[in-house]
Amino acid sequence: MQTVFSVRTSGPGLYEFTDEVARFVRDSGCREGLLALFVQHTSCSLLVQENADPDARRDLQEFFRRLVPSSDEPTMRWLTHTTEGPDDMPEHIKTALTAVSLSIPVTDGRPAHGTWQGIYLFEHRSGAHVRRVIGNVSG
Amino acid sequence: MQTVFSVRTSGPGLYEFTDEVARFVRDSGCREGLLALFVQHTSCSLLVQENADPDARRDLQEFFRRLVPSSDEPTMRWLTHTTEGPDDMPEHIKTALTAVSLSIPVTDGRPAHGTWQGIYLFEHRSGAHVRRVIGNVSG
Amino acid sequence: MQTVFSVRTSGPGLYEFTDEVARFVRDSGCREGLLALFVQHTSCSLLVQENADPDARRDLQEFFRRLVPSSDEPTMRWLTHTTEGPDDMPEHIKTALTAVSLSIPVTDGRPAHGTWQGIYLFEHRSGAHVRRVIGNVSG
Repeated sequence: MQTVFSVRTSGPGLYEFTDEVARFVRDSGCREGLLALFVQHTSCSLLVQENADPDARRDLQEFFRRLVPSSDEPTMRWLTHTTEGPDDMPEHIKTALTAVSLSIPVTDGRPAHGTWQGIYLFEHRSGAHVRRVIGNVSG
Repeated sequence: MQTVFSVRTSGPGLYEFTDEVARFVRDSGCREGLLALFVQHTSCSLLVQENADPDARRDLQEFFRRLVPSSDEPTMRWLTHTTEGPDDMPEHIKTALTAVSLSIPVTDGRPAHGTWQGIYLFEHRSGAHVRRVIGNVSG
Repeated sequence: MQTVFSVRTSGPGLYEFTDEVARFVRDSGCREGLLALFVQHTSCSLLVQENADPDARRDLQEFFRRLVPSSDEPTMRWLTHTTEGPDDMPEHIKTALTAVSLSIPVTDGRPAHGTWQGIYLFEHRSGAHVRRVIGNVSG
């Protein structure tokens, strides 16, 4: 069984959709099996992270901003793919450093992530976007 | 078919559980299909790496320690999520930079990884822990 | 259904095999399900990235070269696993920072990646190699 999650974003950061994923798995009727998530973009990614403290999510985003600065910053002047703006290439790099797909076992009709784990869309791009994540449940 | 692997750790580093995974796949009776592994924590991750030389694993751990230093080091003073200690946020970041899930095809009743590939729990946290990894075999 | 993709490489960079993957999925007869890809090496990885501009792929490779320099460069002198050459350990680290497995849903008989997403073997090693990627379709 498949679905498309539409995750609305408004600038770089982590957007949780754990509840939507749980609902899809419940509605699928699957009791034990495998859930796969796949994001159909090259400037955002998927992340499983602590869902307790918003500070942690801001720090995470800031780490990636410092690790991969915009192409208009001195340390990144060597970038050549800049026609789509100074953040375009850093967005692709951040996606490469994180994940575009996740595989989460389904146990007793629920995604078997830990108590403190949330499922996030990690947006790297500025502006408002609706991001597509494909969900597949099998087994 | 599912299982829970309990991986005992004692501080940052790589802990191999390749043999336990192979045993689970063999006992599942699956000849061809897919094995999924998922770690239920946000301060350790999963890694497929060379299983030959312990030096390689120490270097790997040291690279991540240098890339994401503790929040009490000068270059990381900007971190805000520090109430759980100077290593808490770096642990989450290292998890984001690596993997929480792996998908490994099963061929002829065995996980189809290469000869030199081992399956590791990559522990980022100090102290002694028992880490839970969910395994799912299907197909 | 399984296959082995043989991807020929000639030095560090991204090598696309999107079409080969699509052909395998089509020939499998699967209409809806899950495709898993797994690379059997520890010095190359898998990447889903923009397939439009070759500059983007060169920048991506260059970012990783700068993030993880050779062990004969001053900032990397601390590496100990150097018997197989100055690039051996950086190759393993780059693999750890990216992905060895991908899970891509199959929809209407095709891998459900986005229009601009291509599937790449990310080679980290010099010289000519034939890299093995296992493909598994189920569901």
